Amino acid sequence: MREDATGARAGIMTTAHGEVPTPVFMPVGTQGTVKAMTGGELRAAGCAILLGNTYHLSVRPGEALIQRLGGLHRFMHWDGAILTDSGGFQVFSLGANAKISDEGAVFRSHLDGAPILLTPERSVRIQEALGSDIMMVLDECPALPATRARLLEAMDRTTRWARRSLEARRPGGGALFGIVQGGTDPELRTRHAREIASLGFDGHAIGGVSVGEDREAVRAVVALTAPLLPAERPRYLMGMGRPEEIVESIGRGIDLFDCVMPTRNARNGQLFTSGGIVNIKNALYAEDPRPLDPECDCETCRNYSRAYLRHLFKAGEILASRLNTIHNVRHFVGVAQRAREAVLEGRFAAFRDAFLERALALRAAEDREDSVEGDAP
Amino acid sequence: MREDATGARAGIMTTAHGEVPTPVFMPVGTQGTVKAMTGGELRAAGCAILLGNTYHLSVRPGEALIQRLGGLHRFMHWDGAILTDSGGFQVFSLGANAKISDEGAVFRSHLDGAPILLTPERSVRIQEALGSDIMMVLDECPALPATRARLLEAMDRTTRWARRSLEARRPGGGALFGIVQGGTDPELRTRHAREIASLGFDGHAIGGVSVGEDREAVRAVVALTAPLLPAERPRYLMGMGRPEEIVESIGRGIDLFDCVMPTRNARNGQLFTSGGIVNIKNALYAEDPRPLDPECDCETCRNYSRAYLRHLFKAGEILASRLNTIHNVRHFVGVAQRAREAVLEGRFAAFRDAFLERALALRAAEDREDSVEGDAP
Repeated sequence: MREDATGARAGIMTTAHGEVPTPVFMPVGTQGTVKAMTGGELRAAGCAILLGNTYHLSVRPGEALIQRLGGLHRFMHWDGAILTDSGGFQVFSLGANAKISDEGAVFRSHLDGAPILLTPERSVRIQEALGSDIMMVLDECPALPATRARLLEAMDRTTRWARRSLEARRPGGGALFGIVQGGTDPELRTRHAREIASLGFDGHAIGGVSVGEDREAVRAVVALTAPLLPAERPRYLMGMGRPEEIVESIGRGIDLFDCVMPTRNARNGQLFTSGGIVNIKNALYAEDPRPLDPECDCETCRNYSRAYLRHLFKAGEILASRLNTIHNVRHFVGVAQRAREAVLEGRFAAFRDAFLERALALRAAEDREDSVEGDAP
Repeated sequence: MREDATGARAGIMTTAHGEVPTPVFMPVGTQGTVKAMTGGELRAAGCAILLGNTYHLSVRPGEALIQRLGGLHRFMHWDGAILTDSGGFQVFSLGANAKISDEGAVFRSHLDGAPILLTPERSVRIQEALGSDIMMVLDECPALPATRARLLEAMDRTTRWARRSLEARRPGGGALFGIVQGGTDPELRTRHAREIASLGFDGHAIGGVSVGEDREAVRAVVALTAPLLPAERPRYLMGMGRPEEIVESIGRGIDLFDCVMPTRNARNGQLFTSGGIVNIKNALYAEDPRPLDPECDCETCRNYSRAYLRHLFKAGEILASRLNTIHNVRHFVGVAQRAREAVLEGRFAAFRDAFLERALALRAAEDREDSVEGDAP
C-alpha cells in the first residue's frame, strides 16, 4: 500500500479472482448482471471488481441455485472479483415494515411478499454460497436524521452482528469486511470506527452515508472516519458516489467505491464525460458528429457519434442503454484509475485539485445551459 | 454462381461494403440498429449484410441527417453491406388510411401523424441518401386475399413504378432490385415475373409473400416464380422466413432472405436451436447448466447456461434480449451458411431433406411438450 501526503493510497487487493488495483470503482450488478453489459465489456472498460446484491440474488434465482451452478462468477460469466453486500441495505430501501431485533431483520420479498429473515449468519452463508470474494457484514443502517439514542442502538447492534458474522464465516471463503455506523455524530463515528477496527476484519467500510444526509455531512464523516480505520487494510465508502466525491474521498484514504449512478443514469441518457454531464436526448446533439467524450477510450466513444447516441435514445433502442452504460462505467472506473496513477506518481494533490476545480466550473456551465436549452419534440 | 440439380445456388454478391456469400440471411435493423446488437456482434455472428428500413429511418432521424453524418453505415458503425427496403411495406402495415395513386402513396407518419408522400422516385432518393448497397423499388403490395382485378391493378402499377425507379436512380449508387407481385395467381405471377425480369434490374425479389397468404400458397409461388427470374442475378424472397422455409426456398433457387423473427422472438424468449424451439422462460430450464444449443458457436452458447438465460429473462434484464438475439441471429445466419456449404459440396438435396425431416420431428415433439409443461411463477 503506497500512501501520499494527502492520505491518498494506491494498493493491490489480491482475491481468488485476480488482483484488484486500488483505488477502484465497482459497478453494481444487482441481479447477476451489470445492467446491459457482458463480463467481456466490463473487462474492456477496465473493471476488475463488481458489486453483487445479496438480497436480490437470494430472492431470485436464489443462492442455492447459483451455488449448484458453480457460483456467481460462473453463473454470470465474470472472471474478475466480486464484492457482495449483506442484503441489509435492501431491508431499508425495499422492505417496507422491516422489523429489526437482535436476531436479525424480518421483512417481505419485493417479488412475492414472502417473509424473509435475514440474520448476520444467514447473510454470511448466502454470500459464501454465491462465492463472493469480499463479503460484507449485516449492519443496521438507520435513516437520517435520527436521534442519538437511535444511532447508538443501531451502532451497538451492528457491533454485535459484526462479531457474530466473524464467528459465522467458514474457512476458505472470501474476505469479510466490517462496517462503521454512527450517523453524522463525530463522537459516535469515532467510537464505532475504533470498535469495528478492533475486531480483525479483512477490510472496513464506512456505512450509512447514502441514506439521506447532506453532502457536507458525508464529507466530514469520511474525513473523520477513514484515518481511524487500519491503514494496511482496504477502506470502502459504501454507495458513493459522484466522480468528484470519489476523487475527494481518495484524498481522505478511501480505496473502494460503488454507485448505481453510472449504470442507472446511462439508461436515462445522462452521460458523464470529461467535459461535464451530457444529456444525450438534448436537441443540441441531433447532428453532432463528435464522439460523446473525445478524451475517452471506450467502445462507445471510439465508434459512435453523439448524433447516433441521441437517435438511439429517442427511438428507445436497447443499444442506447448498452452504449451509454459502457461509457459511464468506463468513465467512473477511469476516474479511480487516473487517481491511482497520480498517487503512484506522487502528484495526487495536484490531480485532485485540478479535477475538483474543473468539475466545479463544468457544473456552473451546465447550470447555465440548463436554463437556456430546450428539448426537441 | 454455382447451381446444383435441385436449383439451389451458391454465389457471391460484390458490394461497396464487401462480398456477400449467398444464400444469405439478413437480420433486420429497423431504426439504424439490429435491436440489441452492435456491428461487431453481427460480424461475430457471421452476418455480412443486414436490412435497413427506409420508412423508419426517413421518419426518424431522417435520411438527410444520416447523409450529412456520412451515410447509414458510418452512422450505425456497420462496415458490412446494407439492403434497404423501399418503405412501401410500412405503408400497408403502419400507414392507416394510405391512399395510393399512380403518383405514389400518401399516408401518415406513425410518430407524429404528419402526411408523407412516398413516390418511386422519392424512395430511390431516400435509399441513395442512406448510402444503401442494395435498393428496392417501391411496389404496391395488396393484402391477400384480393380479387384478380385488384391484383392486376397492383401488378401493373408496380411495373410502372419499377420503370420510374430505374429512371430515377443516379449513377454511382447501390444496386437496384425489382419486385414481382401477382398474389397467388400462377398466371399473374408468371406474367409479372417476365415483365419485371425484362427491365434490367441488378436483382429480383418475390414480394407479397408475407401479407396474409397461407404457407402452402407461398411455397407454390416461390416454386413457380424463382425459375422465371434471371439465373445470373440474385433472387430475394422478401420477409421470409422460418429456418425450414429458408432451406426449402434455397432449394428453389432463392439467394436472399430477411425476417424479424430471430430478433423479435429473441426478445420474447423464443429461441431457435438445432434441437428445436426453446422457450427460455420455461421452468424446465431453471437449473439447466447446459448451453442453449450445444451445436452453436455463438457468444451466448459458448459462455452462458440455460439457467442464466432463464434468470435474465425472468428478471427482465437487458442482457436477456442481448444474449437471446445474438443466438437467434447466429442460428438464422448459420442455417443459410450451412446450406451454402452443402451446395458447394454437391450435397444440398441430402442436407435439405435431413434438415426438413428433423424440423418436422422437432415440431411434433414441441407440440407434445407444450401440452404438458407449465411455467414457474
